[in-house]
Amino acid sequence: MPYVNVKITKENLTSEKKKALIKGITELLQNLLEKNPQTTIIIIDEVETDNWGIGGETVTDRRKRGL
Amino acid sequence: MPYVNVKITKENLTSEKKKALIKGITELLQNLLEKNPQTTIIIIDEVETDNWGIGGETVTDRRKRGL
Amino acid sequence: MPYVNVKITKENLTSEKKKALIKGITELLQNLLEKNPQTTIIIIDEVETDNWGIGGETVTDRRKRGL
Amino acid sequence: MPYVNVKITKENLTSEKKKALIKGITELLQNLLEKNPQTTIIIIDEVETDNWGIGGETVTDRRKRGL
Amino acid sequence: MPYVNVKITKENLTSEKKKALIKGITELLQNLLEKNPQTTIIIIDEVETDNWGIGGETVTDRRKRGL
Amino acid sequence: MPYVNVKITKENLTSEKKKALIKGITELLQNLLEKNPQTTIIIIDEVETDNWGIGGETVTDRRKRGL
Repeated sequence: MPYVNVKITKENLTSEKKKALIKGITELLQNLLEKNPQTTIIIIDEVETDNWGIGGETVTDRRKRGL
Repeated sequence: MPYVNVKITKENLTSEKKKALIKGITELLQNLLEKNPQTTIIIIDEVETDNWGIGGETVTDRRKRGL
Repeated sequence: MPYVNVKITKENLTSEKKKALIKGITELLQNLLEKNPQTTIIIIDEVETDNWGIGGETVTDRRKRGL
Repeated sequence: MPYVNVKITKENLTSEKKKALIKGITELLQNLLEKNPQTTIIIIDEVETDNWGIGGETVTDRRKRGL
Repeated sequence: MPYVNVKITKENLTSEKKKALIKGITELLQNLLEKNPQTTIIIIDEVETDNWGIGGETVTDRRKRGL
Repeated sequence: MPYVNVKITKENLTSEKKKALIKGITELLQNLLEKNPQTTIIIIDEVETDNWGIGGETVTDRRKRGL
């Protein structure tokens, strides 16, 4: 019954990667905490780099500086 | 003053349905909990089926299997 | 499969009210959007009035002023 | 290390405004709470006016009425 | 730089389990998506069973029925 | 009408600091984005250090190491 929300910057995440991420987190919750995978919900939010700030600046600006 | 966030898969939700959902939840909070509708905020997030996992797989894959 | 998060101020919400709220939102999503109640998750967060701001002040301060 | 999520309606928010918002909130957390800006994350969600409800109606409908 | 929020029912989750969960998800994001663990934030919310609904009822009521 | 959620570790945040944080963010949104403070909602979540992970470990463990 867990609910997991993953927020990452929108930068070419493929469907295959999303599948692997969903499978991996679901299995982790099952193995570690015995949570039923049938009611484990994982939601991935891909956030534009303009809309993600860290260190007081946008990720867009960090990418320009090679970070 | 309540805040409600509804996350559903992005699958042809019409404006009319959204209006009805917002109206319905707002009324429920008013009737049940006497919450003021004027400061009740409802946000609907429509999530791509590739980005929603349940049962360890994406909803995209489940839809292909007829679920 | 929807996920709903309701945030309200922590002010004597009884178990009975919580049950009614969960039942009501689940039914609304079933009736309006044909969502399966068996995988509809509702999470209620009760937030201390010191931690909820509106109009630039805490709800604690608003309550003192009779709002 | 704080995490801040700002949700606003999607209505022509420029990159410059986003930068200023991220910078402003990060500085506020540093000045008020001595939080390290290097691990302060700010995420801005821009929500379609059809998907934002207040007062029991969508912001789209409110905008039509001049609100 | 990812942000992950895990919500689970509050039912005797030990500090050791929390550590393992945080470590596991952080490693998964590093291995799968090459995300920097130093800025990967994981927040675990433990939710009272009275405040978690699934299938239109609270988890408290489900537990009483042996589910 | 914005909604802002601030998550910080639970470490002796006073009511005065909370008031200042709520006031500061509300004013920032008003000054930068012309958002109406009367419908600006700010919610502060204080998270136990056991439940907050960064760098693959809990903040509890980091604090023990002087970080």
